[in-house]
Amino acid sequence: MEGRFAARMQTVHRSFIREILKVTADPSIISFAGGLPNPRMFPVPAMEAAAGEVLSAMNGPASLQYSTTEGDPVLRSIIAERYAKKGVTVDPDEILVTTGSQQCLDIAGKVFLDKGDIVAIEAPGYLGAIQSFSVFEPTFVTVPLEDDGPDLAALEETFKAGAKLFYAVPNFQNPSGVSYSLEKRKAVAELLDRYDVVFVEDDPYGELRFMGEHLPPVYSFRKKPGLLNGSFSKIAAPGFRIGWVVAPGPVRDKLVVAKQASDLHTSTVAQAIMRNYLENNAIDEHVEAIRETYGAHRKVMVEMIERHFPKGVEFTRPEGGMFLWVTLPEGCSSMDLFDVAIKRKVAFVPGRRFTQTAGETTPCGSTFPMPIPNGSRKASPDWAKASGIS
Amino acid sequence: MEGRFAARMQTVHRSFIREILKVTADPSIISFAGGLPNPRMFPVPAMEAAAGEVLSAMNGPASLQYSTTEGDPVLRSIIAERYAKKGVTVDPDEILVTTGSQQCLDIAGKVFLDKGDIVAIEAPGYLGAIQSFSVFEPTFVTVPLEDDGPDLAALEETFKAGAKLFYAVPNFQNPSGVSYSLEKRKAVAELLDRYDVVFVEDDPYGELRFMGEHLPPVYSFRKKPGLLNGSFSKIAAPGFRIGWVVAPGPVRDKLVVAKQASDLHTSTVAQAIMRNYLENNAIDEHVEAIRETYGAHRKVMVEMIERHFPKGVEFTRPEGGMFLWVTLPEGCSSMDLFDVAIKRKVAFVPGRRFTQTAGETTPCGSTFPMPIPNGSRKASPDWAKASGIS
Repeated sequence: MEGRFAARMQTVHRSFIREILKVTADPSIISFAGGLPNPRMFPVPAMEAAAGEVLSAMNGPASLQYSTTEGDPVLRSIIAERYAKKGVTVDPDEILVTTGSQQCLDIAGKVFLDKGDIVAIEAPGYLGAIQSFSVFEPTFVTVPLEDDGPDLAALEETFKAGAKLFYAVPNFQNPSGVSYSLEKRKAVAELLDRYDVVFVEDDPYGELRFMGEHLPPVYSFRKKPGLLNGSFSKIAAPGFRIGWVVAPGPVRDKLVVAKQASDLHTSTVAQAIMRNYLENNAIDEHVEAIRETYGAHRKVMVEMIERHFPKGVEFTRPEGGMFLWVTLPEGCSSMDLFDVAIKRKVAFVPGRRFTQTAGETTPCGSTFPMPIPNGSRKASPDWAKASGIS
Repeated sequence: MEGRFAARMQTVHRSFIREILKVTADPSIISFAGGLPNPRMFPVPAMEAAAGEVLSAMNGPASLQYSTTEGDPVLRSIIAERYAKKGVTVDPDEILVTTGSQQCLDIAGKVFLDKGDIVAIEAPGYLGAIQSFSVFEPTFVTVPLEDDGPDLAALEETFKAGAKLFYAVPNFQNPSGVSYSLEKRKAVAELLDRYDVVFVEDDPYGELRFMGEHLPPVYSFRKKPGLLNGSFSKIAAPGFRIGWVVAPGPVRDKLVVAKQASDLHTSTVAQAIMRNYLENNAIDEHVEAIRETYGAHRKVMVEMIERHFPKGVEFTRPEGGMFLWVTLPEGCSSMDLFDVAIKRKVAFVPGRRFTQTAGETTPCGSTFPMPIPNGSRKASPDWAKASGIS
């Protein structure tokens, strides 16, 4: 049986970050590796109360039964209302609840990608997306990420070359921390419309802005809307695996079919607990508390880098989210630095792989990403074994 | 964007059963359609207690965090112990926890199926599996199911013709209710070994035997073990979406990579509740109660068919599970009968599609499946909208 694997399995690899995290399993290591939310910010008592109601004698039978592939309609309405508050108009029937936002990538791949299709991704780019799309054997082309978003000329080049799909994280990107400016959002939207490219806009961190002004998603500026992915992982808790994708009706219908083939539907119990939590708690206040905590950590991080890092080192100053990207001077290797740091009991994720995986080479190890420490700096064995890189 | 769907989306369809169920949304209809467990048998108070512990102040932060792709090691040990009680030796490290057993099919497809590979399936066969494998664009070949398992000569023909993968449900099959005899289990195992075919053995119903003797899975008779899928959906509750697959180490490693790309990991909260439930309750006693209830319903069903159905109608007499398959006399159409029955407020699933979907034709509508009524015969709107057919 071992000799009979599909061809795609030669290009789909285990998470690189996961391998790094094994090294950081030692609890004496201070880890800046990976994007794990701060568990101190999880709304534990509220979730306990929600679970109690959901699994009461009255509600239990329905909460434990099979449910629809589309997801709980009330949960979808709540998601739509939260978009509306931010000025984004979304019909609940255009929302599909997914098993984490990672599943949005899998089903988008299923619905859109034939072998050899060109997928444009940011460089550096989110490894989880590269892993997910790789299953469908596309050709990846990378678009350099600048301080305010993608290099527009390079992006247009990939579109001209026939890119079918563009995947991006316009807010506080994983791994760079970069956010798209308003101008670049509009420009990207215009290019997408002009070349009719399928856009998968991943936005798990958009609400975690601790400075600057909230900007609408690229989705808002489109004439032909694309896919907009969201998640409760960073604003409530990742352990439920509840994300969603917004897509125009005919596309959502295809995504529903793809999800049905993947896992029938997302956990009824998990959706019911999340819905009950949202109905009975002020999540916006909770998100505000997360923002304050993460913002304070980011401030310390930036100050410490400014104070202690040598001249010639550059780094992004993210306005939100969980990631910060450091660029080493020409000739320095982030892989070598990792070896030095780990001996001093400090871990980070070398940046090299974030572009290399896409099949291109970058100046060897000139960069490394570093997530903002968020209060749980010590790697637990569980986290070390965790596969999560979103 | 609508014009840019992948080629596979032309062959992956919405669940046929789901469409039938829309017709049965009317609560005045007595529905024998689909395989929904009886919600009266869900262990609601025990699950409520389990959720309370899992989301306590002490346990909550870990229960709500990201976790490993492989799944909770303690949950995997419990699954292995339950196999051991039935004489099946399984290493917990050979188990991968999945998001329902439907996901086992998706990741098996990812790991093994290249476009055009031959997949052998039973006729009639489980539609959810056909839907799931279709994503990977194989060629389906059907193997007729006899009263005691597959037609062995036909099975060997497909193996000789180069089948890469064989998918089967040897216990109380969906949709036929047929179980493989001991002899056929051994013979199938021998053929699989001889032709080195990847075997995906789906066993969601195996514990629901209400008569006859428990038989070991085909997995037990193999020299080269295949994949063995299991699920808590029918013995505890489907709403958690917790299934698993057993596979030899190198194969499990590939399945882990495929799952990581699909949804990172299965809900930490759902796994924690299920584990706590299993640690603190006697699930074997619970399963015994389900068996008694379903067995009583099956008895009534068989008696009523014998008493009221006209001569010339044949039907399976399942020894367990949830399904019973009726064969109409030559010339009768199950689609026509459906139209008549629905006017009389009775629904069932016409059997035609269970083989047609595989790309072959069968005598038009000569059969229809009918699940054993299990106490919740009235279709609720939720069930009508449910996609679940596993």
